[in-house]
Amino acid sequence: MGVKEGKGPQARWFDKILQDDYYGEKTFEKAESKLLKNSITMAIEKAGLKKQTIDVMLTGDLLNQLMSSSYMARDVSIPYLGLYGACSTMTESILLASVLVDGGFCTHTVAGASSHFATAERQFRMPLEHGNQRPPQAQWTATAAGAVTISQSLGRTDKPLCCITHGTVGRVVDPGITDTNFMGAAMAPAAFDTIRAHLTDTGRKSSDYDLILTGDLGRVGKKILLDLALKKSSQDEKDESVFRHFRKVYEDCGAIMYEDCQDTHAGGSGCGCSASIFAGRIVKEMRAGKYKRVLLVSTGALISTISKQQGETVPGIAHAVTVEVM
Amino acid sequence: MGVKEGKGPQARWFDKILQDDYYGEKTFEKAESKLLKNSITMAIEKAGLKKQTIDVMLTGDLLNQLMSSSYMARDVSIPYLGLYGACSTMTESILLASVLVDGGFCTHTVAGASSHFATAERQFRMPLEHGNQRPPQAQWTATAAGAVTISQSLGRTDKPLCCITHGTVGRVVDPGITDTNFMGAAMAPAAFDTIRAHLTDTGRKSSDYDLILTGDLGRVGKKILLDLALKKSSQDEKDESVFRHFRKVYEDCGAIMYEDCQDTHAGGSGCGCSASIFAGRIVKEMRAGKYKRVLLVSTGALISTISKQQGETVPGIAHAVTVEVM
Repeated sequence: MGVKEGKGPQARWFDKILQDDYYGEKTFEKAESKLLKNSITMAIEKAGLKKQTIDVMLTGDLLNQLMSSSYMARDVSIPYLGLYGACSTMTESILLASVLVDGGFCTHTVAGASSHFATAERQFRMPLEHGNQRPPQAQWTATAAGAVTISQSLGRTDKPLCCITHGTVGRVVDPGITDTNFMGAAMAPAAFDTIRAHLTDTGRKSSDYDLILTGDLGRVGKKILLDLALKKSSQDEKDESVFRHFRKVYEDCGAIMYEDCQDTHAGGSGCGCSASIFAGRIVKEMRAGKYKRVLLVSTGALISTISKQQGETVPGIAHAVTVEVM
Repeated sequence: MGVKEGKGPQARWFDKILQDDYYGEKTFEKAESKLLKNSITMAIEKAGLKKQTIDVMLTGDLLNQLMSSSYMARDVSIPYLGLYGACSTMTESILLASVLVDGGFCTHTVAGASSHFATAERQFRMPLEHGNQRPPQAQWTATAAGAVTISQSLGRTDKPLCCITHGTVGRVVDPGITDTNFMGAAMAPAAFDTIRAHLTDTGRKSSDYDLILTGDLGRVGKKILLDLALKKSSQDEKDESVFRHFRKVYEDCGAIMYEDCQDTHAGGSGCGCSASIFAGRIVKEMRAGKYKRVLLVSTGALISTISKQQGETVPGIAHAVTVEVM
């Protein structure tokens, strides 16, 4: 985790906090790649495995051509599948890793994602030296990486294990937002679409979950998602029943990553945001007995500098995975 | 397929050839997205399916943040997983779609990939207006898209069906190439690594295949791969047996996409190169009885403009899928 994230309210959950966002490298991009590499390596070690036993590794990041993931994969030398779902990448990687394992194609896999404030800011927005002013709806790309191993069986363990029991692949939903700082609004309708599809497909209600955790809608997007759920509930009897207790179990990683006083405005974002809070905090809390069933819904805003220049809107996407303690 | 590809030796196999590489759009990026969309739509229609019955669509392209795929997915509105493996994306998408189907998670899926000469050239190299000279080892990014439906069963058909029976996820292999025009050399060692891993894992020899088809090594990369196979065979008795007939069954999509007189130098490249030749030609030839068992090995060069500026080399990757007529 980066320096700023290490001063935030989630700091005690993270396994490693950097003293310097360059992480001993010459560029921020190489620092992000190293952060992801360490995250992958730690996940493998914590599972008591060796990298030679990992069949496939699935990762992604926000950089053009997945620079962080590609160079990490070169250094780690495990068979590698690159994924891009913007900040929804963590659930995309968990979902596909689970499918590879549950379908009997792999024994051990690793799923991960990373982001870095400095690499994202200069790629998508302005040079850092520019020191441009950020609007109140803007979010702060977390300097963070997270990874989990997903295996057929790790044998006996002291603590209960987290299992992936369901996955819902999301559709791209475009609410027509053109302000690339307003990502919470661009992603919230996609998050709602995926959560609703998930609950409909499984015949569950939001109250069947101890926690429904979106990726990085931030404070503004979180409010929009709550409004969408409330609006839908008031229009449809079935939705009313499904979303009745949604507010009680709902939280967003971006909204809890930083303190208000950390000047991040609407909260955190980036692939590493939900990746680090899920792998760093939620998995530990689940294994310690706090939650039995969690729905993780990482959310992505599919922007590129080119699409913006060509007058395109910012479409959103969200994928969901159910994690249960067994 | 683009105008230039429509004048090449593979033209008769392609389902649609454009009259203009803008394809009625204002930008090349939007043209590429439309090309992919049409390819996906045609694949669904040819399988006698409707888009509402497709559970998941897996696609990717070369553009920053997968612009072509993202906007295609918004317009098509099917649950979508974005993949990035540079020009290896077609086999990555086929492999993961097959896993989703074979593992029982999906009934119908679509896998596809696209590329466009004009979008890739201006993103990775020079503005088109610059008219820069290309070195002899350079390849020409194909303006092309290809897609296939992968389903549990389509019921009775007149012709035999192609089935995906094996998949091998590749490792990133970096031969240390720094010339971003020399992609054939950057990818050939990864292609060899994946083909060797596939043959070792399955206990097969190259002679067990009617065709081993790499993605876009081009004429130079094809020669390097043949040299690698020959060298390995002369050093190791086991490799000698495995690769004995390799030369007889080996071909490369990039090497056959254009005529020598089309001035593409080392041949074709881009995600759409192997995607269109596989979906456009090979599947048809297999169903007509020409090949029984094909190994498709799409190959990718993991370059980005940022990594090049930071003095990094060009790592390669390749994924393989076995396609058999049943």
